[in-house]
Amino acid sequence: MKPSLSSVEDALSEIRSLIEKHHSFVLLEHQKPDGDCVGSGLALVQALRNLGKQALLVSQDPHPAVYDFLPGREFHTRAQYIEPEDFRAEVAIFIDCTDPERAGKGLELASNSIWVNIDHHVSNTGFGDVSLVVPDAAATGEIIYKLLLAMGVPITKEIATCLFVAIATDTGGFRYQNTTQETFEIAGALTGYGAIPWEIAEHIFETRSVSSILLLGKALNTLKLSRGGKLATVSVTRDMMAQAGASPDETEGIIGYPRSISGVEVSLLFREMEDGSGFHVSFRSRSKVDVSKIAMRLGGGGHPRAAGALVKGNLEEASQKVLSVLDEFDIWMDS
Amino acid sequence: MKPSLSSVEDALSEIRSLIEKHHSFVLLEHQKPDGDCVGSGLALVQALRNLGKQALLVSQDPHPAVYDFLPGREFHTRAQYIEPEDFRAEVAIFIDCTDPERAGKGLELASNSIWVNIDHHVSNTGFGDVSLVVPDAAATGEIIYKLLLAMGVPITKEIATCLFVAIATDTGGFRYQNTTQETFEIAGALTGYGAIPWEIAEHIFETRSVSSILLLGKALNTLKLSRGGKLATVSVTRDMMAQAGASPDETEGIIGYPRSISGVEVSLLFREMEDGSGFHVSFRSRSKVDVSKIAMRLGGGGHPRAAGALVKGNLEEASQKVLSVLDEFDIWMDS
Repeated sequence: MKPSLSSVEDALSEIRSLIEKHHSFVLLEHQKPDGDCVGSGLALVQALRNLGKQALLVSQDPHPAVYDFLPGREFHTRAQYIEPEDFRAEVAIFIDCTDPERAGKGLELASNSIWVNIDHHVSNTGFGDVSLVVPDAAATGEIIYKLLLAMGVPITKEIATCLFVAIATDTGGFRYQNTTQETFEIAGALTGYGAIPWEIAEHIFETRSVSSILLLGKALNTLKLSRGGKLATVSVTRDMMAQAGASPDETEGIIGYPRSISGVEVSLLFREMEDGSGFHVSFRSRSKVDVSKIAMRLGGGGHPRAAGALVKGNLEEASQKVLSVLDEFDIWMDS
Repeated sequence: MKPSLSSVEDALSEIRSLIEKHHSFVLLEHQKPDGDCVGSGLALVQALRNLGKQALLVSQDPHPAVYDFLPGREFHTRAQYIEPEDFRAEVAIFIDCTDPERAGKGLELASNSIWVNIDHHVSNTGFGDVSLVVPDAAATGEIIYKLLLAMGVPITKEIATCLFVAIATDTGGFRYQNTTQETFEIAGALTGYGAIPWEIAEHIFETRSVSSILLLGKALNTLKLSRGGKLATVSVTRDMMAQAGASPDETEGIIGYPRSISGVEVSLLFREMEDGSGFHVSFRSRSKVDVSKIAMRLGGGGHPRAAGALVKGNLEEASQKVLSVLDEFDIWMDS
């Protein structure tokens, strides 16, 4: 359901007048905030502060350390540091949250406020007193940018930097399918306002931990190709994580490597569960195979190109189970 | 030396009238053409063909296979397949060449032609009957885009795709220091003309060979941090390349990994020379250290942030030599 242009314009002007009319704002991030949420929140809280408003950005979970370089952090705090009974904001703005519950503990701070919902997820429930949901936007940062333009707020270098981070992270550095002509136009405008693309890229794309690099090396050493080069598998055991000093999060980018191999259609990452009872299996498909069906057969789920499932047993047993399901789908024959 | 705006305008209109007046064109790429050269060349040759001109894109060396998905390849050939005495083009357009010799064997095809020089390298010698050199452009593709606009040639989806590749490769996917507001504006316009950012990114950034991934795994397993975490070193031996089935080219992206480690200021990649007599050492610096000085002391050279040198001896001897020079520079104390 695509909002009509006029409903977007209406929501922008309603939010604009809410902001003009009121003085105190709480901005609520979703749990485990990502770059779009953090960048959008920091941009908007600074814009409100620059207008002389009282505004606080609140999240249940901490900001990932990679965003520590962003300006405006002095206006951010975590929900557990605030007593809801002592707190009152006239307006609560939900940032990048598909539904109010996504704000987690932050939601307790919004119980007596007017609710504004700013998001780009197609699955957004449309909650709130005012709802500005634009599924065509690559990032919530794009919507915040348009809101600031509609409000006539000066876009400072600091705000531009935060919005650029929001957009660059949610588009994978302008590489995902959500990247549009408008995404580039906004990135260009933000660069004009003072965002420095290469400095931001250094922080968000070119900074890694030693442990993640050691783990990547170990994982790539397990690479196996099979099914005529169409299936690529890598695995990460608890031992490997211990040796690298890595946390389970740090497996995150690994599956991109087998996935990227020329000729590979399906790639798998087996990550041993912390209790050793089995493996978390991530599935990626390059273009043709719907891996969500395979994951579902194994009790998991996901999207056609990216899915996951938990499979019990040791590595040998878990791979046998996964391969037998894969082979049932007979995906190696076509093309 | 920055060209004045009027000299750029003058060159654009001179090239425009040369193209109107003449019928046969040869477009010359530089040796070992990169994405900017290939994308710019394919874009311009298609634009000229669409105008009904006779036009051929020529390179001494083959196009890297990663660009095989680009349209217009039927108008490209290699210089060695053409007899210079049988060939005549009224106009030779040098693409992305700092000087005419960069065209290698292609230069032989330009001996009786009017020379046009289109490039963005600051080191361009300004050769040619018409010279359009714009050092502020992130890529020669940006200049070709402006030329096509000035000529009023329709920018087809095919041309837009080639120009997008030119710009995306030379900016490292909009991550290098050359990325400007205008770079994003042009990328946005090209997306509007039909370039598909995510499909292009899949081809140029998310496609790797098995051997390069195996080699990366082996190289990362050699990672060593020293000097209080400010120096990161990885090495690649001939054995590792043989085991991975990799060519020396495939070491290319490896140094980005140690370089990206949080807290690392200088990173080194030791790559064993094919004759086993020593190591090619690549130096990268994050922000403060001028590694070209260190490379120069070892008989090499380069830029402040990226340099290289050849060092004789086995790995132990080579690293000792490099470390002793590094330590002389006393770069570990500051900050």
